[in-house]
Amino acid sequence: MSHRFAARSFRVEDSFIVEIFKYLQDKEMISFSGGFPNPDSFPIEALRKASDIVFRQEGKSVLQYAQTEGYLPLRQFISARYKKVYDLDIPAEEILITSGSQQALDFIAKTFLDPNDKVLLEEPSYLGAIQTFNSYEAGFITVPLNEDGIDLVKLEKALIEHDPKLIYVIPNFQNPSGVTYSETNRAQFCEIVRKFNVIVIEDDPYGELHFTNQKRTPLKSLLPEQVLLMGSFSKTVSPGLRLGWVCAPKAIYKKLFTCKEASDLHSSNLDQHLITRYLQDNDYDEHIASIRSLYKTRKETMVSAIESFFPKEVRVYPVYGGMFLWVILPQGMSSLDLFYEAVKEKVVFVPGDPFYVDQKHVNALRLNFSNASEADITEGIKRLAEVIKQQLKK
Amino acid sequence: MSHRFAARSFRVEDSFIVEIFKYLQDKEMISFSGGFPNPDSFPIEALRKASDIVFRQEGKSVLQYAQTEGYLPLRQFISARYKKVYDLDIPAEEILITSGSQQALDFIAKTFLDPNDKVLLEEPSYLGAIQTFNSYEAGFITVPLNEDGIDLVKLEKALIEHDPKLIYVIPNFQNPSGVTYSETNRAQFCEIVRKFNVIVIEDDPYGELHFTNQKRTPLKSLLPEQVLLMGSFSKTVSPGLRLGWVCAPKAIYKKLFTCKEASDLHSSNLDQHLITRYLQDNDYDEHIASIRSLYKTRKETMVSAIESFFPKEVRVYPVYGGMFLWVILPQGMSSLDLFYEAVKEKVVFVPGDPFYVDQKHVNALRLNFSNASEADITEGIKRLAEVIKQQLKK
Repeated sequence: MSHRFAARSFRVEDSFIVEIFKYLQDKEMISFSGGFPNPDSFPIEALRKASDIVFRQEGKSVLQYAQTEGYLPLRQFISARYKKVYDLDIPAEEILITSGSQQALDFIAKTFLDPNDKVLLEEPSYLGAIQTFNSYEAGFITVPLNEDGIDLVKLEKALIEHDPKLIYVIPNFQNPSGVTYSETNRAQFCEIVRKFNVIVIEDDPYGELHFTNQKRTPLKSLLPEQVLLMGSFSKTVSPGLRLGWVCAPKAIYKKLFTCKEASDLHSSNLDQHLITRYLQDNDYDEHIASIRSLYKTRKETMVSAIESFFPKEVRVYPVYGGMFLWVILPQGMSSLDLFYEAVKEKVVFVPGDPFYVDQKHVNALRLNFSNASEADITEGIKRLAEVIKQQLKK
Repeated sequence: MSHRFAARSFRVEDSFIVEIFKYLQDKEMISFSGGFPNPDSFPIEALRKASDIVFRQEGKSVLQYAQTEGYLPLRQFISARYKKVYDLDIPAEEILITSGSQQALDFIAKTFLDPNDKVLLEEPSYLGAIQTFNSYEAGFITVPLNEDGIDLVKLEKALIEHDPKLIYVIPNFQNPSGVTYSETNRAQFCEIVRKFNVIVIEDDPYGELHFTNQKRTPLKSLLPEQVLLMGSFSKTVSPGLRLGWVCAPKAIYKKLFTCKEASDLHSSNLDQHLITRYLQDNDYDEHIASIRSLYKTRKETMVSAIESFFPKEVRVYPVYGGMFLWVILPQGMSSLDLFYEAVKEKVVFVPGDPFYVDQKHVNALRLNFSNASEADITEGIKRLAEVIKQQLKK
């Protein structure tokens, strides 16, 4: 039987992540590939207790159908957290709970994109976002990231030339590059963008995981009506629960709400109550501080191993938070070729290619530092250094 | 700011369910409106114990990112259940876990439908399905339901004339009509459909909730390559967990998998482990039997109240399972008008209109019998009878 699939269904290729997954079965493999939080950071016992209380006190209601927009006390917690951390006023009524912020991205794409509508992306950009926009047949425009944020000259030029409907950015500890927009870059970004009828998707899964107290003003506070701000508990509590959110002005909120209703009615009511109980009964600041400290140490271990072992031709972007380091290889060296050599030495990473819309054999790669032991980080970087040196000789 | 929304976003209206929700705040209101399971059927204590075990034994892994296709032991349970209940062979590899079967519907629509592609629906049909197909700009063809199944003559005619890509049916205890396809109707349905390049979506959320031992052969067993079979734990364990699934042949499975990946990566890993542990440690057959018995009693109470109090001009479809009764009012009487009169007497139901693609003031309505007490059922039907009698006099 020949299937009559929709045009959009031919737009999405198998993700390279599936390819990488094959190699992770090998127990001797050291992995810097996934965007996985360190399981040592999961508050297992506190969540177990929260779960016990929720079942005992609210069993009938948490197991029943619930409101599409999400559990109000959870939305109120998120609202209060924005006020506390960023002095940002977002009423709970403008917060929609989604199954991870990935789902919010899906709803935004579904709400705005007709086929061939343009989306402006940072280059490199998050591969899951590229995949989602692709699934709605988007056209892409890319603007390079510099060490201090997005290239503003190219941004303005692209906005004038291509009139995108959406801009997708990760201003804090970007995935994959680790780049954080400077305060100046943020202000100028917003000054440029406010002149255009374009919606900015500000994805912020890593914002709480900073290693310095540098100020990082949310774009949402500079452009409240134009920015959809997405957040997630995946990197701070647990990705397995699939709980994220999007903050949207009322007219857009209504559309996203309808997407949620038609897609899965609501996110797990049990998980929403469970995490709310956890957040109410525990010191969330202290918990986040412990993750920051854990990841900061891992990052320093990785950077110092890189400084010790990598050849001088290799550059690494400075990183002040999050989970990733971006490694720039000498011009002409393919990170994809390097990947298959590295596999033989039992170390894996994500080559640059899937973070680009239209480039192959990119000379950059992503290293995750959150989810390997310190010993593995040092050993893995040593192995990788040898592979790079071999490639340099070719 | 005037937003540049996608064309599809204008296709979905506010669901009537939101309208009904307003009235449910009134504590004196008797509701036959929702499609809610009875919370007395939730296995709260058994799930609490399962949750405790899962946190203690597998905390690190259940809180981490997981496989997009779902937790293998859960997919194996579902596979084994099909074998046991229906003697149906569906390998676990062809089962994709989704966040409720609603989400499977979303992925199927996304995979197959370009704008204006045709979907064939039963008339009346499930309003959530209409909403989802609408969100992908489908065109609709409808074929009436009779008491023993779909109208086969009109089905074949519609297939020839309109060449739909998808057929959406609920052969067991249909929502809203309660209709169950007879064995003959199923066989003939499949004989007709196999001649066309059309995919059948067999939605079966209520199949386990039967009140008789009448045989109900899955369409999937008659047309394995052409049928996508959807199931759900919402009506048998808990809707709050949002766990459903779709069974699909390999070529289609691959597309649905990609939709899942781009939409929310995977369903709650915690909830998947929790329900698996629950299913493994408890007698599921016994649990389902207790729900059947609970709902059968409620249905009998409702039918007998209807026989006692409703005027003779009102017809009710015979129902052998599920959660709904379909009430047909005398020709010309509007169930929507009746709704607003009934609200004044503090009883609500869902008028027929949202179950139709293009009809207003339908003379039929849906009553839910699973989620009201027996006393409320009798009292609510009495109130409704009075309202109908008043309308008849007009």
